[in-house]
Amino acid sequence: MTVLILTSEEDVTADMVVVHLNSSGVPVVRLDPADLPGGVALSGEFVHGSFRGHLQSAGRLVSVSGLRSVWVRRPGDVASRAAEPSAWLTEESSQALYGMLRGSEARWMNHPDAARRARHKPWQLRLAQRCGLPVPATLITTYPQAAREFADRYPDLVVKPVSGAHPQDPPRAVPTSRVAPDTDFSAVAFGPTLLQRRVGKRADIRLTVVGLRLLAARKAAAEDTDPDDPGAVDVRFASPDIPWEATEVPPGIAVGVRSYLDEAELSYGAFDFAEDADGTWWFLECNQSGQFGFVEVETGLPIARTVAEWLARPGPEPQRHANGSNTTVC
Amino acid sequence: MTVLILTSEEDVTADMVVVHLNSSGVPVVRLDPADLPGGVALSGEFVHGSFRGHLQSAGRLVSVSGLRSVWVRRPGDVASRAAEPSAWLTEESSQALYGMLRGSEARWMNHPDAARRARHKPWQLRLAQRCGLPVPATLITTYPQAAREFADRYPDLVVKPVSGAHPQDPPRAVPTSRVAPDTDFSAVAFGPTLLQRRVGKRADIRLTVVGLRLLAARKAAAEDTDPDDPGAVDVRFASPDIPWEATEVPPGIAVGVRSYLDEAELSYGAFDFAEDADGTWWFLECNQSGQFGFVEVETGLPIARTVAEWLARPGPEPQRHANGSNTTVC
Repeated sequence: MTVLILTSEEDVTADMVVVHLNSSGVPVVRLDPADLPGGVALSGEFVHGSFRGHLQSAGRLVSVSGLRSVWVRRPGDVASRAAEPSAWLTEESSQALYGMLRGSEARWMNHPDAARRARHKPWQLRLAQRCGLPVPATLITTYPQAAREFADRYPDLVVKPVSGAHPQDPPRAVPTSRVAPDTDFSAVAFGPTLLQRRVGKRADIRLTVVGLRLLAARKAAAEDTDPDDPGAVDVRFASPDIPWEATEVPPGIAVGVRSYLDEAELSYGAFDFAEDADGTWWFLECNQSGQFGFVEVETGLPIARTVAEWLARPGPEPQRHANGSNTTVC
Repeated sequence: MTVLILTSEEDVTADMVVVHLNSSGVPVVRLDPADLPGGVALSGEFVHGSFRGHLQSAGRLVSVSGLRSVWVRRPGDVASRAAEPSAWLTEESSQALYGMLRGSEARWMNHPDAARRARHKPWQLRLAQRCGLPVPATLITTYPQAAREFADRYPDLVVKPVSGAHPQDPPRAVPTSRVAPDTDFSAVAFGPTLLQRRVGKRADIRLTVVGLRLLAARKAAAEDTDPDDPGAVDVRFASPDIPWEATEVPPGIAVGVRSYLDEAELSYGAFDFAEDADGTWWFLECNQSGQFGFVEVETGLPIARTVAEWLARPGPEPQRHANGSNTTVC
């Protein structure tokens, strides 16, 4: 049974996982959908009520029924490196590839449908609430008056994109920013705006969840930071001088994130929390394709190995236990 | 409890359904996501673990928790009629609208995730097989040699797009065509190609399924048609002289299509079958957004009324009974 990795050619994070898979002797086929058709070929036959399909890349042939897992890492757009690329060829090739793979019995990290749904920020916030995770008061609105009233109730606000981590990130990264007290909200009418109570944070938390395993990292806030400094609000712009360090996961959070991923039908999720002065972890977002290389390098948390183990495991995924009995904080 | 209809302004099929809803006194809000922001406004607040959201259009205000059902008919691209449209505004507005609606408890016809998955032709074929529907032998391949061998086994073939009914249909409609006996398949390497055994058909079948109800129409093949005529292969190009007529659904097909929609998590599907000389219905495709106006007009089948009844019903959807006991052929 083979592990299929869909990603671009240059992907050091995938390289890290492949090293672990190779050392455990698990067959791996790695390909970039951008190379279909061309470097990647496929064929699937539906005859007499059954299906036989296979993929080929770099001389490796793998049958669809022989896949144990599919890791959708950072795949290129299907057919984007074809001799004559076109929107129509991309559509046709994408339907052929993902349509065939959807018929396999393989476990997915993550399934394209679940991944797509998981990108919706309003859906994330609602799901986090339902799973008992603390969510800062949030408003998404096109009504200037609603924004004004919200700012009266929560005077210390940040504004951030509704669409969160955009697929074209980082080129279109939009930092989370503080909202000035005297802000004129009339432009809210021209585009849905997400306002959120600012969490006075003493640390950023990145909690990477791989199947049942929780791997948490913490980056303390700089003590002397100007609260209007971009890094004080958005960890992506924070000082590189303070390192990420491995940390323990509060039991309530462990239960909540496992419940979240169960509901979301995700096997991998990178949660961002803000830790406040009381030690409460406030849910900010869950990125189903969040990077983990930088966390592993700084903390030594064995994320790549854990991903490799998940991909390599035969059989179906074990049930998550919402009572936290399987908490394996590394 | 309100029915929300997402569709463009000019949509006579939606008009037909709205007439039935209005006559039964069910509140309806109809809006086009293209008008958000602008003619359509929204607001959603996540505070203290709960969510309150609402939408406004043409002076009508509806709360997200007050929706009984959402009909995704033919919605425009979100924000496409904004004062200053952009890809970013579309992404932000789409996440805000559909992200909020995804958190509602409403029944969907059809849910966007299920709708998206259901467009994958290879997945359709595999699901139809699993549900016991007869599927003509089909090959999807980028291997010229595989295409040649398939043509040796099934000399009478048609070729059609992998991506089936494209979202931009009809401008990009590609007719199903017969494959000439001496075809050179070498170009198959440049794009995934779908080859299918041609069903020698005596009729086209359009089976519209709305919740539990099956509404079937049959259009007999013209007796004197040249088999190379486009209309002999692809019903979209068939003679308008032969009318669609209401017909009965074979019990095995009734069980199969209900099982198909259950698995696909769809509440509406328009199935196309080819009826052969033995009376067997061969599955060609299931279009989750298939038009039904032309069938209703020609056959008198009460499809619009059935859609309205489904949308208007309070409470969750009743279970489909795969044993066919609820077969309600109209």
